[in-house]
Amino acid sequence: MNTSIQKISDFATGEENTGYAQYFSGKSWLAPLTSNKDLNVPVANVTFEPGCRNNWHSHTGGQLLIIIGGEGIYQERGKPAQLLKSGDIIEIGPNVEHWHGATSDSWFSHLATNGNPSTNENNWLEPVSDEDYNEANNQIKK
Amino acid sequence: MNTSIQKISDFATGEENTGYAQYFSGKSWLAPLTSNKDLNVPVANVTFEPGCRNNWHSHTGGQLLIIIGGEGIYQERGKPAQLLKSGDIIEIGPNVEHWHGATSDSWFSHLATNGNPSTNENNWLEPVSDEDYNEANNQIKK
Repeated sequence: MNTSIQKISDFATGEENTGYAQYFSGKSWLAPLTSNKDLNVPVANVTFEPGCRNNWHSHTGGQLLIIIGGEGIYQERGKPAQLLKSGDIIEIGPNVEHWHGATSDSWFSHLATNGNPSTNENNWLEPVSDEDYNEANNQIKK
Repeated sequence: MNTSIQKISDFATGEENTGYAQYFSGKSWLAPLTSNKDLNVPVANVTFEPGCRNNWHSHTGGQLLIIIGGEGIYQERGKPAQLLKSGDIIEIGPNVEHWHGATSDSWFSHLATNGNPSTNENNWLEPVSDEDYNEANNQIKK
């Protein structure tokens, strides 16, 4: 099936994110936007199709999300889901378990960079169940 | 005089950037968007009124600019000026002398973070002369 990507920001969308597909439910696209290793701030645009989200995971260095288009969800383990829209910033502390992705009915794009990128490692955990994902979608509509 | 800030992005505009006014020609606004020092990736939104630009300067850690609205200019010492629009990314190497700001007829906003922020220092130099600024505006219209 051919998925056409909805235009929701001015940033490059890149290629289908096959490298991380094993850690995602649904299709995503990845565009690395930086290349200068001297800066030590690698930034990429991640675009999620409606319903797509990544697995529960954490980063040893933490992560910064800069929301640039569409509507998404961010949830930390044991906390309510948060609706994300363009202009929002999410700061994720080191080793905090969380997931992020599109809402069930919207495309979603965020820029992402890791905190302390020179030493950061990602720890991937289990997928977000359909039950938990549906509950998150219900929470943000209230 | 009361300047009303034109809405050119979804990100917070913050307060008038009086702390750095001595290094700017024209008015700018600064919105720090992050607070978690554990991440070591401080990001701020800088908004320039039409005609506003910062002085020639460099960063020991380099700098990353993420363009989110309006039209701006980036120029490195001895190189042609570049037009900046939403969706553009500028990577500025350590100690590279440069300036950035709005075009003469547009508001402009970029997110900015420094490379290697824990050790970065800014080195501020002379203002961009009206002659050089006008020449840069002419270059980007060609």
